[in-house]
Amino acid sequence: MRQQKLFHRTLRDVPAEAETASHRLMLRAGLIRQLAAGIYTYLPIGLQALQRIEAIIREELNRSGAQELLLPALHPAELWRESGRWDVYGPELMRLKDRHEREFALGATHEEVVTALMADEITSYKQLPVTVFQIQTKFRDERRPRFGLLRGREFLMKDAYSFDVSKEGLQASYRSMYDAYHRIFARCGLNFRAVEADSGAMGGTDTHEFIALAGIGEDTIVHCSACPYAANVELHAAGAGDACPRCGAPLETAKGIEIGHVFQLGTRYSEQLGAVFADDAGSSVPIMMGCYGIGISRALAAAIEQRHDDDGIVWPWELAPYELHLITVQSADAAQTELSERLYRELLAQGFRVLWDDRPERPGVKFADADLLGFPLQIRIGRQAAHGIAECKHRLSGAITELSVDKLPDWIGTMKRQSNQL
Amino acid sequence: MRQQKLFHRTLRDVPAEAETASHRLMLRAGLIRQLAAGIYTYLPIGLQALQRIEAIIREELNRSGAQELLLPALHPAELWRESGRWDVYGPELMRLKDRHEREFALGATHEEVVTALMADEITSYKQLPVTVFQIQTKFRDERRPRFGLLRGREFLMKDAYSFDVSKEGLQASYRSMYDAYHRIFARCGLNFRAVEADSGAMGGTDTHEFIALAGIGEDTIVHCSACPYAANVELHAAGAGDACPRCGAPLETAKGIEIGHVFQLGTRYSEQLGAVFADDAGSSVPIMMGCYGIGISRALAAAIEQRHDDDGIVWPWELAPYELHLITVQSADAAQTELSERLYRELLAQGFRVLWDDRPERPGVKFADADLLGFPLQIRIGRQAAHGIAECKHRLSGAITELSVDKLPDWIGTMKRQSNQL
Repeated sequence: MRQQKLFHRTLRDVPAEAETASHRLMLRAGLIRQLAAGIYTYLPIGLQALQRIEAIIREELNRSGAQELLLPALHPAELWRESGRWDVYGPELMRLKDRHEREFALGATHEEVVTALMADEITSYKQLPVTVFQIQTKFRDERRPRFGLLRGREFLMKDAYSFDVSKEGLQASYRSMYDAYHRIFARCGLNFRAVEADSGAMGGTDTHEFIALAGIGEDTIVHCSACPYAANVELHAAGAGDACPRCGAPLETAKGIEIGHVFQLGTRYSEQLGAVFADDAGSSVPIMMGCYGIGISRALAAAIEQRHDDDGIVWPWELAPYELHLITVQSADAAQTELSERLYRELLAQGFRVLWDDRPERPGVKFADADLLGFPLQIRIGRQAAHGIAECKHRLSGAITELSVDKLPDWIGTMKRQSNQL
Repeated sequence: MRQQKLFHRTLRDVPAEAETASHRLMLRAGLIRQLAAGIYTYLPIGLQALQRIEAIIREELNRSGAQELLLPALHPAELWRESGRWDVYGPELMRLKDRHEREFALGATHEEVVTALMADEITSYKQLPVTVFQIQTKFRDERRPRFGLLRGREFLMKDAYSFDVSKEGLQASYRSMYDAYHRIFARCGLNFRAVEADSGAMGGTDTHEFIALAGIGEDTIVHCSACPYAANVELHAAGAGDACPRCGAPLETAKGIEIGHVFQLGTRYSEQLGAVFADDAGSSVPIMMGCYGIGISRALAAAIEQRHDDDGIVWPWELAPYELHLITVQSADAAQTELSERLYRELLAQGFRVLWDDRPERPGVKFADADLLGFPLQIRIGRQAAHGIAECKHRLSGAITELSVDKLPDWIGTMKRQSNQL
């Protein structure tokens, strides 16, 4: 993409309402704009990052055997009455009436709708197990929308639901999703912990939260200094300093952002909404369910919360809207423009995602914008263009290397491999 | 995908409310399910077809230079009041209040929201022209939702908006979108006409509807028997039999389904919402706008309306959720299952989209389901499996060919090329 054509604008001023780094940077770097409290537009490069997370989720969930569908956002109130949640969900559930005065909820979550679907579709144990997921806008009227995408009222979510014949089946489906979540968040470049969230009825492993570690997070966890054990702080009244229940090493506390949640529901919804199957003896049995959410827009904000510095965003490679930021230092210089254009075409042909800063701006403006946008590698074509030399900046380390343009593909490949090992 | 694992079920009975072929077939073939009047769930293979149309739209619009973003679905009422449409839009616009009693509209269309965005982002003629688009769920409370996805209340739409400095610029942006629409609908395999819809202020070419020809369509058009001229019937009171205004040949009438609309808006919204730019003399000028819609879920239904027979759907190749339906005729037969599994892996490795019917069903059930699902090619592995012979059915023509499995890739390639020429 040529930056002159890109619908994009960086902001110099930090809006007053932006309290967190990710919120400030997403506004300043031109990823999002606010329409109303907790309601955002995704501008082109913001949407591209979001779509990269979506693609990772689709790949990993398809690999795990889950199947994508798309449920409606408008839910008849009757379904929420059947489950008992119409009255208990409170003002967070947005409600409206159609032209015939029939009541609807705007989908905040989809247990009711997906269970009603399964009640119609599943008749026999032979059709089970099955896990379905969707990627969809959700609506929750938060009391205090804030922190940009971290706590919005309209946000993008992946929700999945598993359906099994037995508790053992549910545990296998749950484990498969739990493993997929690890792969997803690792590929997103997130520093996260899977946290035991509730020691409820099923033995301490029936629900996990996935927490991206971040000082501004609203969740507090304890995690072991030696083993992977981690838990919601509510499970550990004393907290920090206690001994790990698994290995005995001292526990530490940390703040974090909830980016995912996996939950063994059991038969709560299937009983209430009549989702039953005939088992191999012909008896009618309620389906065992699990539900699994990922806050996609929140994961994007969490990634930026974790990966930024004073100059701007420092994208994890897989999420970066562009991998390479090709910068013509002086657009009026024919040698620089010519070499840039040749490189732009070659790098695109090699399959890289390239943004070419071909704007007639001062070098200082271009460099500052490039650091703010924070794509992994910057390739500056400047004074040494006539000698076929580019100045290459690695955004994460800040290291600048002069390279013959012939050596660029190798260097990019090396940097990409290193970045995947981080 | 192995059909035993696919979350999918065909229906034998045609639901009473399904009046059109596309509605009946999408229910019978397991593409969609109704949640409430005009509100549908997309099951996995229905969603895959929808996503194939989305991919075509993204490719062709990116090629045309348009840039994707994502606008919110919740719109503050103030914006619709500023444009004057809060009061005139009527009950089709779904409305709700948040927990603070603030009024919102559910996005039925996005002129207000995108114009408000541009009012903030665009300051100078140097930032123009720009065309943006989004793919998003829209909400319209139709008085009579019917015909399945053809007239729904919650539906998937691509909407685009162009922003130019002048009428000439607008006409160029309009033309670019008009051309992209031709490419999109042609790739979708649709039989369509671009129809002059209004001879309004800008000389007869300021708006076109794209109409998929279909007997059950609610739009009537006249089109020339000799040249590409076509127009909305309201522009031709006499209609059929009149002389074509372009070439003089007789006009014919036809029924059709509106699948797209391109419209030169001018400055109606930019004036009301204050979207102005500084021109090269420094004067403040309202932006010239165009808007461009495609009903994605409707286009899917229109494709099925045009492409079906008594036995089921006949997918256009590019939209088919799977290209190849590999059918093990007798799943209990080891030779058949072995050859099927080998072929399944090979065809997947060659990049084909393959559904493998590995179910322990009777051959008649499998063949009927395959015709109902209607993927372009069926590859039946039956009695001659031991000799490496498959029976191949071309769904469109019905022709059945016996082929050595070694020859399959060539045959598939030939069939695919022929199908793209249709």
